[in-house]
Amino acid sequence: MLERYLRVRSETEARAAPLSAEDQGVQSMPDASPTKWHLAHTTWFFEVMVLMPFLAGYRPCNDCYLELFNSYYESLGPRHPRPQRGMLTRPGLAEVMQYRAAVDIAMRQLLDASDVPQRARFAAAVELGLNHEQQHQELMWTDIQHALSLNPISPVYSATAPLPRGGAGTSSWIDLPGGEVEVGHTGAGFAFDNETPCHRVRLAPFGLASQLVSNGDMLAFIRDGGYRRASVWLSDGWAQVQAQGWQAPLYWRTAGTDGGEPASRFSLRGEVPWRADEPACHLSFYEAAAYAEWAGARLPTEFEWEAASHHRDAPGLSDLFGQVWQWTRSSYDPYPRFKPMAGAAAEYNGKFMVGQLVLRGSSLATPAGHTRPSYRNFFSPAARWQFTGLRLARDL
Amino acid sequence: MLERYLRVRSETEARAAPLSAEDQGVQSMPDASPTKWHLAHTTWFFEVMVLMPFLAGYRPCNDCYLELFNSYYESLGPRHPRPQRGMLTRPGLAEVMQYRAAVDIAMRQLLDASDVPQRARFAAAVELGLNHEQQHQELMWTDIQHALSLNPISPVYSATAPLPRGGAGTSSWIDLPGGEVEVGHTGAGFAFDNETPCHRVRLAPFGLASQLVSNGDMLAFIRDGGYRRASVWLSDGWAQVQAQGWQAPLYWRTAGTDGGEPASRFSLRGEVPWRADEPACHLSFYEAAAYAEWAGARLPTEFEWEAASHHRDAPGLSDLFGQVWQWTRSSYDPYPRFKPMAGAAAEYNGKFMVGQLVLRGSSLATPAGHTRPSYRNFFSPAARWQFTGLRLARDL
Amino acid sequence: MLERYLRVRSETEARAAPLSAEDQGVQSMPDASPTKWHLAHTTWFFEVMVLMPFLAGYRPCNDCYLELFNSYYESLGPRHPRPQRGMLTRPGLAEVMQYRAAVDIAMRQLLDASDVPQRARFAAAVELGLNHEQQHQELMWTDIQHALSLNPISPVYSATAPLPRGGAGTSSWIDLPGGEVEVGHTGAGFAFDNETPCHRVRLAPFGLASQLVSNGDMLAFIRDGGYRRASVWLSDGWAQVQAQGWQAPLYWRTAGTDGGEPASRFSLRGEVPWRADEPACHLSFYEAAAYAEWAGARLPTEFEWEAASHHRDAPGLSDLFGQVWQWTRSSYDPYPRFKPMAGAAAEYNGKFMVGQLVLRGSSLATPAGHTRPSYRNFFSPAARWQFTGLRLARDL
Amino acid sequence: MLERYLRVRSETEARAAPLSAEDQGVQSMPDASPTKWHLAHTTWFFEVMVLMPFLAGYRPCNDCYLELFNSYYESLGPRHPRPQRGMLTRPGLAEVMQYRAAVDIAMRQLLDASDVPQRARFAAAVELGLNHEQQHQELMWTDIQHALSLNPISPVYSATAPLPRGGAGTSSWIDLPGGEVEVGHTGAGFAFDNETPCHRVRLAPFGLASQLVSNGDMLAFIRDGGYRRASVWLSDGWAQVQAQGWQAPLYWRTAGTDGGEPASRFSLRGEVPWRADEPACHLSFYEAAAYAEWAGARLPTEFEWEAASHHRDAPGLSDLFGQVWQWTRSSYDPYPRFKPMAGAAAEYNGKFMVGQLVLRGSSLATPAGHTRPSYRNFFSPAARWQFTGLRLARDL
Repeated sequence: MLERYLRVRSETEARAAPLSAEDQGVQSMPDASPTKWHLAHTTWFFEVMVLMPFLAGYRPCNDCYLELFNSYYESLGPRHPRPQRGMLTRPGLAEVMQYRAAVDIAMRQLLDASDVPQRARFAAAVELGLNHEQQHQELMWTDIQHALSLNPISPVYSATAPLPRGGAGTSSWIDLPGGEVEVGHTGAGFAFDNETPCHRVRLAPFGLASQLVSNGDMLAFIRDGGYRRASVWLSDGWAQVQAQGWQAPLYWRTAGTDGGEPASRFSLRGEVPWRADEPACHLSFYEAAAYAEWAGARLPTEFEWEAASHHRDAPGLSDLFGQVWQWTRSSYDPYPRFKPMAGAAAEYNGKFMVGQLVLRGSSLATPAGHTRPSYRNFFSPAARWQFTGLRLARDL
Repeated sequence: MLERYLRVRSETEARAAPLSAEDQGVQSMPDASPTKWHLAHTTWFFEVMVLMPFLAGYRPCNDCYLELFNSYYESLGPRHPRPQRGMLTRPGLAEVMQYRAAVDIAMRQLLDASDVPQRARFAAAVELGLNHEQQHQELMWTDIQHALSLNPISPVYSATAPLPRGGAGTSSWIDLPGGEVEVGHTGAGFAFDNETPCHRVRLAPFGLASQLVSNGDMLAFIRDGGYRRASVWLSDGWAQVQAQGWQAPLYWRTAGTDGGEPASRFSLRGEVPWRADEPACHLSFYEAAAYAEWAGARLPTEFEWEAASHHRDAPGLSDLFGQVWQWTRSSYDPYPRFKPMAGAAAEYNGKFMVGQLVLRGSSLATPAGHTRPSYRNFFSPAARWQFTGLRLARDL
Repeated sequence: MLERYLRVRSETEARAAPLSAEDQGVQSMPDASPTKWHLAHTTWFFEVMVLMPFLAGYRPCNDCYLELFNSYYESLGPRHPRPQRGMLTRPGLAEVMQYRAAVDIAMRQLLDASDVPQRARFAAAVELGLNHEQQHQELMWTDIQHALSLNPISPVYSATAPLPRGGAGTSSWIDLPGGEVEVGHTGAGFAFDNETPCHRVRLAPFGLASQLVSNGDMLAFIRDGGYRRASVWLSDGWAQVQAQGWQAPLYWRTAGTDGGEPASRFSLRGEVPWRADEPACHLSFYEAAAYAEWAGARLPTEFEWEAASHHRDAPGLSDLFGQVWQWTRSSYDPYPRFKPMAGAAAEYNGKFMVGQLVLRGSSLATPAGHTRPSYRNFFSPAARWQFTGLRLARDL
Repeated sequence: MLERYLRVRSETEARAAPLSAEDQGVQSMPDASPTKWHLAHTTWFFEVMVLMPFLAGYRPCNDCYLELFNSYYESLGPRHPRPQRGMLTRPGLAEVMQYRAAVDIAMRQLLDASDVPQRARFAAAVELGLNHEQQHQELMWTDIQHALSLNPISPVYSATAPLPRGGAGTSSWIDLPGGEVEVGHTGAGFAFDNETPCHRVRLAPFGLASQLVSNGDMLAFIRDGGYRRASVWLSDGWAQVQAQGWQAPLYWRTAGTDGGEPASRFSLRGEVPWRADEPACHLSFYEAAAYAEWAGARLPTEFEWEAASHHRDAPGLSDLFGQVWQWTRSSYDPYPRFKPMAGAAAEYNGKFMVGQLVLRGSSLATPAGHTRPSYRNFFSPAARWQFTGLRLARDL
């Protein structure tokens, strides 16, 4: 457990390493957080969820941090307002790294000193903290990419940051029988509460596209006036298109509306050549749904996606994981008989179950080991700054 | 068909009758429309959906009306902006009533002159227009109540307008077995496209409260600090509570936070005495969900509600229909294999299927004959000005 | 005094007469008021400023009106929020006309029954009420023109409403010597407190244009890219141009940016032909200042304008009064030793003396007899819906 | 000239020195700028106003900087949006300091190599650049104090930062004769264009308070309900009080509305004890005007202030300079025959001459040597984050 703890913690720091202290302090919008805040908040999580309840005699590193780095846990007291996270120039990055180090020492002490029965009492909290930190690892990348994108000099996060893998061939339909399937997490491994309880749902026969929708596909949509045709958009989506002036996926440097290909797109590597054969990324749900409508298809439900993913060793379905999260046509509702985790962790997922859409799979930004077929990611339908794309579905 | 047409049309006019021309012109918020606009828009619907396609030689009454009274049909050309409907002092009410009369004459001509095969071609459009008009009859009441509520002299719409029926006894749990049930519309009668196709879903055993949640129940919630406890609210709901300063259901004239009962509440009859035994009404989804959480229960899913409604002749479940719409815990998503209606009517329902919650049942404002177990009403989770309440559910 | 009272009151009603009850209820923006509200508020002014203090035994017509029709007098108790005036469908127009009639009867009683010493006590309040009502007469026209302009069917207020007088010849410079001049009101007639005290200011020699800037002049500005050149705008003005998308004066139906003349402009007569030789109207201060800068001139100060107006019988200066209010380069600051009127009337002018610019002259909408050289009109620099234009000035 | 250049430049760097790179990147509101941006923008000013026009062969350090660090000069090409200055994590602070060093080297080269006739060509531009940089030195302090104030841990900028000097005695009235006085800059020294031309104005006799209004005075105002009495506020000011919830001057940590003294106030030294005898600071014009009204006095005009300042060696008038800027009752209008500077510098002052109020004197944050009686500072009437206070005036 200690080794795993240290491995996850060091991945967080590795993701921060290419950035200056200045880069790590910036917050580009209320939905995003500074890198430094992610570093501190994930540490706070171990402090309040593990050390304070389970390590005898533990004293918080700094009482102020309990408020500064509380994200949204109302039951854990007051918290610094989310839109103001970028104002926290103090504590500085060096102090936050000291905070991480101090909590790591205490965690090592807790993990080293505990025998098996003791560990059983906090194992779930540690595991939750590690999965929580992995979620923030992905957000660190999406948030810093957004912040850097607002700088006209197009800074580079890292010249070796991952890019989506291009080169996929033509998509074909993989048809599946539906029927009564089991969805949700089962078994011994970790899962978030929102993946439970496992239950059965009925599905009609359906098809899923073997490939993700690509940049070239989106360009065809644009060339056909996709961003100017109300008829393929949900009403709220069309309102967004008009209010925000959307003409292409986020980060495309030209919209391609003149018929030509975009010159570039902004990425963690700065400006990179636009490639038709890369999976389309940084799409809102509204854009994903409009593309599907335009293409004469639809988005899969989260249950169709999950059912199909159990077939993933079968020939055909590519890139379920590791490229882009895939929007589904499922609202983020609780599963039947859903029960939130106990204590403060009850606020982890359940209170967000309205107004959001489920995404399935994982992205190139998702840390290794943080994926599974039952995983439910969720964002508001207008969100574009995550590594989000789509895969088509159809009725049979 | 003609008789039914005239009966529905005259109900619309009856609902407008207690109002002055000035009352009928006011728009209190972008989500609401003036009474006069409802009178005209429902007429426009018959003009563009029935008369123009099906009555040979028909010419629109006034070309301007095609734009002024188009609500949200992008495929039918430009439209007057929704938030500006209250600016349309011209055409005046008298002209709008002439518009209604002229369309009624043309409709009579169409219905009278058609033989059975001819009627078959437009029967669905007429039926849709009638159901559409009935939906607007309910909105006329909710919209005018909202507008009048903003006037400090508390105007009376009508001293005989319906009020919720009080006097229900103590609620008890009606337990139901769940299992695989059929949901959605089937059979010969009219239904909206969003109620189809009929399909099977699996339900776990569950209980429904025999009674609606009452004003007295809400007062207990308030007295227990319900509007000040983040822990029982969804995150977006809590943000609304704080941003809007909600302290009680809409139209309660005092919040009751001091422990006393409200003096009155605003209704279509103006100020009326607050009654503890009336069903709670004018609640948002957020408030409904918070109440349920506080009460140690939950909201039913729309499928649980529909399954239970088939038992309604059984002793126990009161007021499924005719008092207040009941918020469910189901997001307004398309049913599997949902297909929108053809033509412009495709925009009727499908494009709103994101970001809203389903309500089931009907309210005291719903016109007679406009209810059925499969009916899916839907509003955004913050909406309070409809006749909306709740019924608790529980897991078994 | 009675005759004058009745004459002013009837002019107000004459201005409302062409409008339906529906027209009279509409409020198009927070800065504008419904016609019905003007009718009632001017009546309220006599009630609270004259009748309640000076007519023994007078009882207000309706206690609610004291709040509903209070505009901004904090010292007179609570008031209905300004942006919500359009929500007041009750009292209806007929009741407001009864309110006017009842107050007129009481005013007649007061004026008839009083002897000279008695009259001396309330004469100033009556005179203030009459001048106040005349100000609202002008606002009735500007406010209803704005409301009707938002209706795509371009309603006509009256086919005989006044239009600016065109046909002025070429403008020439009228040079004036400056020196120490007296400004502000002096003498026996009525003036608002903001015109006092009369005092001396020093002026350098200056020139004023003989003519108002015309539509044709504005078109030349537009054709030369005036609305796209930051260099001629004040910083706040340029921000408005971009935020609001201004391309031409308000109510021009096409911007003329293609080089052609606008087809029409909206007026109290509905759409009327655009005429190059009419004085430009419905300009903000920002546009007036930008035009002057582009023209190599400047706006006059309010003192230059007032000094020049004393020369108006001299050949040359046209249209000082009766066409369009003329923006000056003077902020609306208090005159040295300014003292507001006593009592509630202290709130009439003084509390608005920040953030506004002074206009001088009068417009075609100003009632007869409501003009004088010392009159200080004032609006925020972005306001466009008044009858506002400009006259150039230059240094000598 | 070189020595003076280096002295001014090093003062800028001295003001940045107590701050970390993270501190220097933060922007707390659109009106404020990051320290790093001030460091770069003042450098850009010398580059574009002096080096590019006057140093043969000079090449800009970095073409991107021409856009990134242009504040508001429309004539100098596109510019990074002001509200987004905090997003510029790159160039980092080290690069900005290199930019400063490179420009300093080039400036040294220009100044060293020039003979007297050559210097005459650019001396005005250098002098403008130095005065410009001194203005930003004051803004660096006000902006960073605002940013740090948003951090709940109340960071300290410097334990030796200046505080207002307390201990002034009771204020008395210093009466002055008025008459025709000369205002505006005259003579050989530097002045901004907005201080010219020197001209004569007439003043009535008036009195000025010998002392600045103190914290104790403001507390008396608060205790008397000053922030809750509409009657003493300008209309726009009262709207701000209600919209922003103002209850005390900015940075007072408790409002003192309970009758007690505030525990502390936030300063460049972090939290410091509140002192009744310090001059009140961080007041908006609205608050200054309300206080004066409440006190039965008024604010001076800018001309009264300037006329009085010529008497400053006379016994009595304290703290005209060096404590807090003093709001005047004068709108920031152009002086008669005002002509902006030539070239790009025309945008320096003139285009801001609307909607702002004049302040006179100087503050503890104003650099040595950057004060004179004719100096016109200006801010919007709601601005509170500057070192702004007031001195009362009265009519005689």
